[in-house]
Amino acid sequence: MRLGLDIGGTKIDAVALGDDAAVLARVRVATGFGPDAVVRNALSAALQAAEAAEVSVAALTSVGIGIPGIVDATAGVVRHAVNLGLGELALGPILSEHLGVPVRVENDVNAASLGAFHLLGLAGSMAYLNLGTGVAAGFVNDGSVWRGARGTAGEIGHIPIDPAGERCACGQIGCLETLAGGGWVARKWGGEAELPVLEVFDAADAGDERAVALRDELVGGAAAAVRILVLTADVETVVIGGGVSNIGARLLDRVCASLDELARGSQFLGSLELPSRVRLVPPGQPVAAIGAALAGVAESEAIGA
Amino acid sequence: MRLGLDIGGTKIDAVALGDDAAVLARVRVATGFGPDAVVRNALSAALQAAEAAEVSVAALTSVGIGIPGIVDATAGVVRHAVNLGLGELALGPILSEHLGVPVRVENDVNAASLGAFHLLGLAGSMAYLNLGTGVAAGFVNDGSVWRGARGTAGEIGHIPIDPAGERCACGQIGCLETLAGGGWVARKWGGEAELPVLEVFDAADAGDERAVALRDELVGGAAAAVRILVLTADVETVVIGGGVSNIGARLLDRVCASLDELARGSQFLGSLELPSRVRLVPPGQPVAAIGAALAGVAESEAIGA
Repeated sequence: MRLGLDIGGTKIDAVALGDDAAVLARVRVATGFGPDAVVRNALSAALQAAEAAEVSVAALTSVGIGIPGIVDATAGVVRHAVNLGLGELALGPILSEHLGVPVRVENDVNAASLGAFHLLGLAGSMAYLNLGTGVAAGFVNDGSVWRGARGTAGEIGHIPIDPAGERCACGQIGCLETLAGGGWVARKWGGEAELPVLEVFDAADAGDERAVALRDELVGGAAAAVRILVLTADVETVVIGGGVSNIGARLLDRVCASLDELARGSQFLGSLELPSRVRLVPPGQPVAAIGAALAGVAESEAIGA
Repeated sequence: MRLGLDIGGTKIDAVALGDDAAVLARVRVATGFGPDAVVRNALSAALQAAEAAEVSVAALTSVGIGIPGIVDATAGVVRHAVNLGLGELALGPILSEHLGVPVRVENDVNAASLGAFHLLGLAGSMAYLNLGTGVAAGFVNDGSVWRGARGTAGEIGHIPIDPAGERCACGQIGCLETLAGGGWVARKWGGEAELPVLEVFDAADAGDERAVALRDELVGGAAAAVRILVLTADVETVVIGGGVSNIGARLLDRVCASLDELARGSQFLGSLELPSRVRLVPPGQPVAAIGAALAGVAESEAIGA
């Protein structure tokens, strides 16, 4: 049995996976802020998940962690996880020493990519397009994550696609994230809704012109992201995940319609058959925690090899 | 010894490579138009290169081909090589039957990517940014080409980066190629120069305002291409090649200056250290023919394995 922990900005989502990759137990714990709190709560989440699955920690095959920030997967070190109050933390070695099992650390989007690849039963190459507060992507090929030369692969949210666009928090103009990032949509929309992007979709359906404009901008940005991922890496499948993907088929259908419209204007783009290559991540699944657990296995196999 | 053929729009560039990957002989032959002419002239180029290297064709380890169009490397089939008059041609099997040695077919940009990786003595991950008539890229990781799921990886010339830009031949608006493609620069500049982009750089140095604008557009497009390649795939190195790269250091220095300026406006972009990751392909080398020969070896090793 292996554990997977998805350490997010507010909560840690922990799962215990059986040898057939089925979820045997799931627990949630508040993340806290700063290195001490994050380490303590991650340990607590791991112990609670093991207890819920009725297994002793010593009997675990591995523990995998998905966490935001720049991750050095070899050293198990996370850097610049600003929302968690982490500058640099050797999370893998610290947790491994406390738990006595191999611990693998992955960037959260990469972990979710592995989880999506597994949950959808994919083969070959896939990009996971995370539409959350920000926009980023992860790449999986034949079950392995492509992290890039410096661990920053998939930072497509900061590709500028409109010189007349808005200034992004990163300092550039017209980044993809300013169109398709949930944080941007929420700020432009205003209000106090718990799921502002869903409120925008509902208001657009009801005919609100400002909501229609914001919705179409988000959909157009998501379609542009799919186009960039396929024109660059030529992945077979693009899986849309992240908080915004909870809108479900209403989002996917509009993204595919947008890609269809682009293809009508370009035979070349049409030949890429983009709409048929886009999928939604399965709803209601702890995709990043499952992916983190799978990443942990990959590591322990490497250690055993 | 192995041969490599770079089949271009006007000529076939053929090299014979020794076991240490040194060029032992090089010949050039007109390409011709249509399947019969291309096959006949490719055979002629291979025989002449073997003769110039004083080796019998039967003693060759392998022959590798680089050719424009969509290439199915497994089947050795090339499709849509419009400039060569080829709809679909089983070039690998045909040449292999005539020559009696394993023949590997690669897309020309992928072949040049392998050649650049070898000539620069690189390790890890690299993108080859081909600034020719059009714009495309190839990816090499640890000496292996990433072709993508459908053989179309690296078609970054058709990523739109300006909704207010010009309509590309592909039907989309504001494609990278409309800024950084040599064909676009030549058309906008006009005249009959043999090397129009070089003429534009010279005229810009002499203070011609129209030339300055075109040069800066090309440089900005090349910098945007580097940014897309690193933000998506996070390759360690981007090597600029293709006809436009013959401008040399005058091009590279301006692209790096443009990337430096972008970094001044964005700490995030600055952290990627883009200028230090860009290189020029070595000048005057038959990079695609050498890469094709190396691709041929990879195939014959696979056959022998």
